[in-house]
Amino acid sequence: MSNARNIIDVVTEFYRIPLAEQMGDAKHGIHTHFELVIVKIILESGNQGVGYTYTGGVGGRAICNLIEHDLRPFLLGKDASCIEKIWEEMNWKIHYVGRGGIASFAISAIDIALWDLRAKKAEEPLWRLLGGTSNNTKAYAGAIDLNFPMEKLLKNIQGYLDSGFRAVKIKLGQERLEEDIERVAAVRALIGSDIVFMVDANMKWSIATAIKAAWMLKEFDIFWLEEPTIPDDYDGYHRIAKEGGVAIAAGENFHTIYEFQNMITRGNIDFPQPDASNIGGITGWLKVAHLAHVHNLPVCTHGMQELHVSLMSAMPHASYLEVHSFPIDRYTTRPLVLENGKAVAPDTPGIGVEFRRDLLQEYKTEFLTDKIAVNR
Amino acid sequence: MSNARNIIDVVTEFYRIPLAEQMGDAKHGIHTHFELVIVKIILESGNQGVGYTYTGGVGGRAICNLIEHDLRPFLLGKDASCIEKIWEEMNWKIHYVGRGGIASFAISAIDIALWDLRAKKAEEPLWRLLGGTSNNTKAYAGAIDLNFPMEKLLKNIQGYLDSGFRAVKIKLGQERLEEDIERVAAVRALIGSDIVFMVDANMKWSIATAIKAAWMLKEFDIFWLEEPTIPDDYDGYHRIAKEGGVAIAAGENFHTIYEFQNMITRGNIDFPQPDASNIGGITGWLKVAHLAHVHNLPVCTHGMQELHVSLMSAMPHASYLEVHSFPIDRYTTRPLVLENGKAVAPDTPGIGVEFRRDLLQEYKTEFLTDKIAVNR
Ligand SMILES: [Mg+2]
Ligand SMILES: [Mg+2]
Repeated sequence: MSNARNIIDVVTEFYRIPLAEQMGDAKHGIHTHFELVIVKIILESGNQGVGYTYTGGVGGRAICNLIEHDLRPFLLGKDASCIEKIWEEMNWKIHYVGRGGIASFAISAIDIALWDLRAKKAEEPLWRLLGGTSNNTKAYAGAIDLNFPMEKLLKNIQGYLDSGFRAVKIKLGQERLEEDIERVAAVRALIGSDIVFMVDANMKWSIATAIKAAWMLKEFDIFWLEEPTIPDDYDGYHRIAKEGGVAIAAGENFHTIYEFQNMITRGNIDFPQPDASNIGGITGWLKVAHLAHVHNLPVCTHGMQELHVSLMSAMPHASYLEVHSFPIDRYTTRPLVLENGKAVAPDTPGIGVEFRRDLLQEYKTEFLTDKIAVNR
Repeated sequence: MSNARNIIDVVTEFYRIPLAEQMGDAKHGIHTHFELVIVKIILESGNQGVGYTYTGGVGGRAICNLIEHDLRPFLLGKDASCIEKIWEEMNWKIHYVGRGGIASFAISAIDIALWDLRAKKAEEPLWRLLGGTSNNTKAYAGAIDLNFPMEKLLKNIQGYLDSGFRAVKIKLGQERLEEDIERVAAVRALIGSDIVFMVDANMKWSIATAIKAAWMLKEFDIFWLEEPTIPDDYDGYHRIAKEGGVAIAAGENFHTIYEFQNMITRGNIDFPQPDASNIGGITGWLKVAHLAHVHNLPVCTHGMQELHVSLMSAMPHASYLEVHSFPIDRYTTRPLVLENGKAVAPDTPGIGVEFRRDLLQEYKTEFLTDKIAVNR
């Protein structure tokens, strides 16, 4: 049945973008690239919405193939206005191979494209369409800097301060805990007592080490300790918070809304950090934001600051936006805008993220490799 | 460094195999195909191991791409004998896009191929290499029969009895709960009181409906109620077991070992059903089997009976092997062998699953589609 709102095409593009320098964290090792998957949804009306997701360098082609072969056929002909219905149905369509992982990234890219269409049709920027609490939000900067020697670490932090940031984060998880503490002490000495300071262990530690680290960190006024151990260990998070006496942040590795629910109610998160690129898009992010709200918790983010700035600005309970060192925003027409230490949301109708194909073009990668390359 | 044990190639094949008839369950809808991903690992010695995974029809190409582009480069040059090390490293290599979903299926296929190599090198069949409790195991048959009219349902169950099965399972989750109960009553009347009888709601129900169903099922001596609700709801499973007074089976939708841990300790599973095709292969399956053992629980399975027959036979605490209606075993040189209602494990060195390319050939599918098909 013909309908201007119907989806008539879903076009997927894949980019592998090199980082300016190698960056390391405690459990993912060294990053050299990030992967960007861009999805364009085209309606019978001719309206177009663009969404995207990203990875730290692996899984991008699997995401593209799941969209192309399993989700695109399902989406064709659907009414694009009914986003939450489509979200629910996509989750069930690929449930057996889903519930997180690649499936959540694929659903995210599509969901964001649908929200781009919804906001454009409403002629509203996202920060207003989603609630309008403000058009700006507190922000912090953090690099994947575990492999940076001390001098470089401090120079990088100074750079953030010079750029106007009033909050910074560094990676922990060196071979020796003492070295972590030395780096924390040096950064605190550099930034002084007024700058907000977070640390991130990227899942490296045992419970015992995390508790010990929390004790040693106390004198440095740490705003939060992020991902001290694996995201599966609810009891572990509970113990670290209680016995370590430290505020806990986590979320980048929870890729279903139920993982947030279980960790908040059974484990401990003081600062939930959903990432719209892997929690099921804006629809999934909003569900976690609401979950946080009813648990009297703030909401934060991980990655993709050029989109999250709008989501966070809209929220009454926003804490800190992460300004991540995968610089997706530098490949858009509006790199992140910072004013008085706060990130400012775009005012354009839609998600406010428009990619610059002129900058991306050279990194475009086939996700459907030549048969020849495979049938060796 | 040259080493006879080093992996020199990983070759992936993809098959989409039609089912003889359409089969439906409560939350996945109608199945028309299953997907089979076969992975061959080749060592410098020339030795070859074959592993595989399967899906209910979606996600297969994403699995193949994750293996081809993200895991194959990692595996080349690795010592294939160190399976558990490789398992751990694969899980971390794709952790950010993993922790279940597509990643678990991809890791499973590779892990099974590595076990095939290990067992062949040991010149042992799996049932002996993994413990040798027995070379056979109790088994039950179940179809994806929610869409079968009553007459067909009963005819199908009679077929299982005629084939020698002493335990059967049917799907629940009709629009009206009363209809489910009518079907259960009719099957119990047909099979008599000696045949073991399980039911499976495939995540359809609310907690309240599941508890009500459990009460109504009591008079029919149901061995277990499988997946009454979504696998994310630990409290829900706890309530259904306690308030419904019914034994609970679940596992096909737990794709990390931690999900089993959390559901066993926080929710309730009486019959854990790990599936080596999606829990991380034989390495993941064994971890769950050990977890069950230390919790004084039996271990069961889901799907791929031609492989699981060997795992279950080896175990001291095996309950029932599922004989699933995705007939992967019919595409191997040794379809499942049933003797006195028990499934018998193969005695050949290796995993004991050898695919018949003559039968599979016509279903072989490119997982790296022509660029032309995509760049519309
Ligand atoms: Mg982090
Ligand atoms: Mg089942």
